[in-house]
Amino acid sequence: MANTQGFILWFTGLSGSGKSTLATYIAPILKQQGCKVEILDGDEVRENLSKGLGFSKEDRDTNIRRIGYVAGLLSRNGVVAITAAISPYKDVRNEIRAKTTNFVEVYAECPLDVLEDRDTKGLYKKAKAGIIKNFTGISDPYEAPEKADVVVKTHEESIEQSAKKILDYLKKRGLLA
Amino acid sequence: MANTQGFILWFTGLSGSGKSTLATYIAPILKQQGCKVEILDGDEVRENLSKGLGFSKEDRDTNIRRIGYVAGLLSRNGVVAITAAISPYKDVRNEIRAKTTNFVEVYAECPLDVLEDRDTKGLYKKAKAGIIKNFTGISDPYEAPEKADVVVKTHEESIEQSAKKILDYLKKRGLLA
Repeated sequence: MANTQGFILWFTGLSGSGKSTLATYIAPILKQQGCKVEILDGDEVRENLSKGLGFSKEDRDTNIRRIGYVAGLLSRNGVVAITAAISPYKDVRNEIRAKTTNFVEVYAECPLDVLEDRDTKGLYKKAKAGIIKNFTGISDPYEAPEKADVVVKTHEESIEQSAKKILDYLKKRGLLA
Repeated sequence: MANTQGFILWFTGLSGSGKSTLATYIAPILKQQGCKVEILDGDEVRENLSKGLGFSKEDRDTNIRRIGYVAGLLSRNGVVAITAAISPYKDVRNEIRAKTTNFVEVYAECPLDVLEDRDTKGLYKKAKAGIIKNFTGISDPYEAPEKADVVVKTHEESIEQSAKKILDYLKKRGLLA
């Protein structure tokens, strides 16, 4: 069976939790299986769709709604749209789930203290020093999903294990042959 | 041959020149021929991607770049993206043409005095009275394309004639079987 069905693979999780890494890892696997795939990464989308928006709740919600709108356009035309923005607020994620079809929420779960220790980009340090304001998990809330379709524990699992969980779920749900 | 090739059908023209009407007319024809089609209309896109932006040159350019970004994502995945925003500035239209593949510029040409006489929505009257500011053609410039791929003269042609011109061009260019 050809994989021509569109869906939205919506990653959510704290900064550094592995959303983009997983998105980048899983995209070519899906392409190999015949899917058309677009990654809508947080930073790239902010540049193209949301320049000028900040990190207040209102601006974040607007940014996430725009990603949701574009992901919806793609997925309803047979494309797999993978989004990798923090998307900290539950209500907007659920709003997009309700407005689209084939919405798959993947929670990249990683304890805050692990991320603070790892801090590959030095962002958590800056956030704790108050140099970066409105930083999710430090000075801004993160509302974890209560019923994510897939939960990947990126501090315990290898990337292969996390990707397998996601692919298995997609097959079970009939989104992938 | 199946019509699975994506392209961008980019309408440009003054307010009331027939962009949306033609977009709405031609979309089901393309669907009947097997194309996947999305219309990115000016107003709908402003609501979803550009709320808060005004009508200064800078804001218009930002809005048009966003439409171009989304149209590019769709068209490179086999979808026909039909855009129907005024898109008054030549440079930005050419920028999007350069950044995307299969960009087809359709100029909905209609003399200003015809549009002012017709004025179905009463917008030209309001613009001339200064009630609406930054109105393209009245108090804001419109830069007509010099080398549009298709020019439809909506004040002289029937909608069927204009649509036929566009469809013939798409076939000639190999974008439609």
